[in-house]
Amino acid sequence: MTIKPIQGGITAARGFLAAGVHCGLKAKGLDLAVIFSQVSAAGGAMFTTNKVAAAPVVLSRQHLGSGPMRAVVVNSGNANACNGEQGMEDARAMAAMAAKALGVKVRQVFVASTGVIGQPLSMDKVEAGIKEAALALRADGGEDAARAIMTTDTRKKEHAVVVDVDGVKVTIGGIAKGSGMIEPNMATMLAFITTDCAIKDNLLQSALKRAVDESFNMITVDGDTSTNDTVIILANGQAQNPLIDKEDGAYLAFLAGLKEITTALAKDIARDGEGATKFIEVNVKGARDFREARQMAKAIANSNLVKTAVFGCDANWGRIICAAGYSGVDFVPDRVDIYLGDEQVAARGAGLPFDEKRARSILQQDEVVITVDLNMGGEMATVWTCDLTYDYIKVNASYRS
Amino acid sequence: MTIKPIQGGITAARGFLAAGVHCGLKAKGLDLAVIFSQVSAAGGAMFTTNKVAAAPVVLSRQHLGSGPMRAVVVNSGNANACNGEQGMEDARAMAAMAAKALGVKVRQVFVASTGVIGQPLSMDKVEAGIKEAALALRADGGEDAARAIMTTDTRKKEHAVVVDVDGVKVTIGGIAKGSGMIEPNMATMLAFITTDCAIKDNLLQSALKRAVDESFNMITVDGDTSTNDTVIILANGQAQNPLIDKEDGAYLAFLAGLKEITTALAKDIARDGEGATKFIEVNVKGARDFREARQMAKAIANSNLVKTAVFGCDANWGRIICAAGYSGVDFVPDRVDIYLGDEQVAARGAGLPFDEKRARSILQQDEVVITVDLNMGGEMATVWTCDLTYDYIKVNASYRS
Repeated sequence: MTIKPIQGGITAARGFLAAGVHCGLKAKGLDLAVIFSQVSAAGGAMFTTNKVAAAPVVLSRQHLGSGPMRAVVVNSGNANACNGEQGMEDARAMAAMAAKALGVKVRQVFVASTGVIGQPLSMDKVEAGIKEAALALRADGGEDAARAIMTTDTRKKEHAVVVDVDGVKVTIGGIAKGSGMIEPNMATMLAFITTDCAIKDNLLQSALKRAVDESFNMITVDGDTSTNDTVIILANGQAQNPLIDKEDGAYLAFLAGLKEITTALAKDIARDGEGATKFIEVNVKGARDFREARQMAKAIANSNLVKTAVFGCDANWGRIICAAGYSGVDFVPDRVDIYLGDEQVAARGAGLPFDEKRARSILQQDEVVITVDLNMGGEMATVWTCDLTYDYIKVNASYRS
Repeated sequence: MTIKPIQGGITAARGFLAAGVHCGLKAKGLDLAVIFSQVSAAGGAMFTTNKVAAAPVVLSRQHLGSGPMRAVVVNSGNANACNGEQGMEDARAMAAMAAKALGVKVRQVFVASTGVIGQPLSMDKVEAGIKEAALALRADGGEDAARAIMTTDTRKKEHAVVVDVDGVKVTIGGIAKGSGMIEPNMATMLAFITTDCAIKDNLLQSALKRAVDESFNMITVDGDTSTNDTVIILANGQAQNPLIDKEDGAYLAFLAGLKEITTALAKDIARDGEGATKFIEVNVKGARDFREARQMAKAIANSNLVKTAVFGCDANWGRIICAAGYSGVDFVPDRVDIYLGDEQVAARGAGLPFDEKRARSILQQDEVVITVDLNMGGEMATVWTCDLTYDYIKVNASYRS
């Protein structure tokens, strides 16, 4: 199976246009995006597990499964969450404005928002933005869209691949935003994916769920699951491959390409965690089952003490085994091996006289790999996160100001 | 029921001596304490729920319930955790050294340690320290003991009360340490309590459990449960009150006094959280049951985003309802009221046009009270924590160095 990375993102696949404009919801920078499929597209989506779901999430959930989709309208700078009935009216108005500007039905439009919670959306700005974006749609507008969905992100996140499906070249591309309020379980960020693959709705949704579970649900920045998390995929069939209507080889080829995109976007989000200076990969292996391995890897990745130790280049492996110990997973402490990069720092639950200098130089890299081997079984899980730094505090101590 | 706070801590009750000395486990400052009851005492204790328990925890668990107790020996600067069989030998040696120096049995000595994980204990230093402390035991040595158990704590924590039990004045006093790796569930710190109350072992243990559940288990600093958490109580009967042997009025009077001590120590720990500038009280009320209220209050208190917002004096109540939303508790977002101090900032799940200046001045106080009213029932829970600051990062980025 060949998966070839290519330039671009949300407009890499045939038949998709996008635009990003500045409408004034943020003081400066692009803050409203429209993604448009020139023909009907199968739609799939996953949303936050937070009990408090933002209005656009509630609305997009209603639109999902109502038939072919055509567009996504997204704003940054305001989450439109906790705004009561007015919030729902505003989300519906966003869909209606986009539908009108694009000449499609209201229920064919997904809506997403990200930004501050609990402040009314300035609908005059949103309306002007949607009109402007609809007129600005372009086949190379993906990058503007990627920028328009950013909040505290320091860089745009877009990826695309070409994958061979039934002998046909299918393109999958996506964009994402998110650097705070990042914790798995669908999944504390926005991501939009387009593909020209021909695939039935139900299989598109199942592939999305599998890809998200192994990518976005494996990252964490601060353990906070937001009210607005949304991943949307549109598949418009323009690649002309035979319609994927069962879990055959073509489905698996598509799924592999999709995972490539969601994983690349997920790692981008972890790498761009608020204030982060380092990307951290936490592997838990030798586990009896995957779920336990993931649960432990997440506990380690979410530990403020582990994250600050990595920031400080301090090979304090005691905090790693401590986090493993309170993860809720049953294991035998005396069997645990711990590695920083390829330097083993603990064996059978006790410290080794490791080379502190080497450990420090490993921790000074941009990417730090922590591996915990439980020596109990053959399963493993990998979770991605970032370090916890002065700048995380700085970014979040006055986010609204 | 009158509970009268008095000066002092671990040596406030009759028949207890203590000492704190410097034996060199820390570069400077007191680092070893001995607490001694002049007569046999009933002992109670609770330990960490972390799967990885330090050697002194394993040993003290064995000694608990083996009969009357006489002493506690504690060191700071080294946790004696993850040191394999050597760690157990060292913990046993600490108990044996203390027993010998004090003329009591080995199993009558509780052992506790706090500090770096995974480094061998320097037993020559410990031995010298125990000998010195045993010779230095004094009826006014409580304050030295309170200082000797500190690690990153910025101030000693000691409290004492006198409570009327069956017409007899009973004294209860305690000391505690802890400012990082603080998360409820027994309870991420060390605390030692002495009382001259006459009370049976099983009732002492049940009173301790009740008091700890409502105090130490209601605080959190960073969500990390340590490998060494220990609360120990010794009750030597020297107050000469009629022996408490059932859950009668005398038991309840004693329990009330004990709760006063554990709550005061727990709040001291939250207030002294690593790098903290503010003490935060999170109330969840109007809940259907206490456990749900506590679960939600803890989720809010553990949110890095809520804690940094308080640090930055940013009335970002959206992060509070967001944390409530992912707490796992079922509730109706549209019924939720949120208050900062006595300023209501959200009503029925939506923002109010509150006075930003007033909200900011509330957040600038040393103590900030956050109240979430679910409007669903009559139960409530209170959790204590602190803000997340630049100094938390500073303290923890190079703890071992």
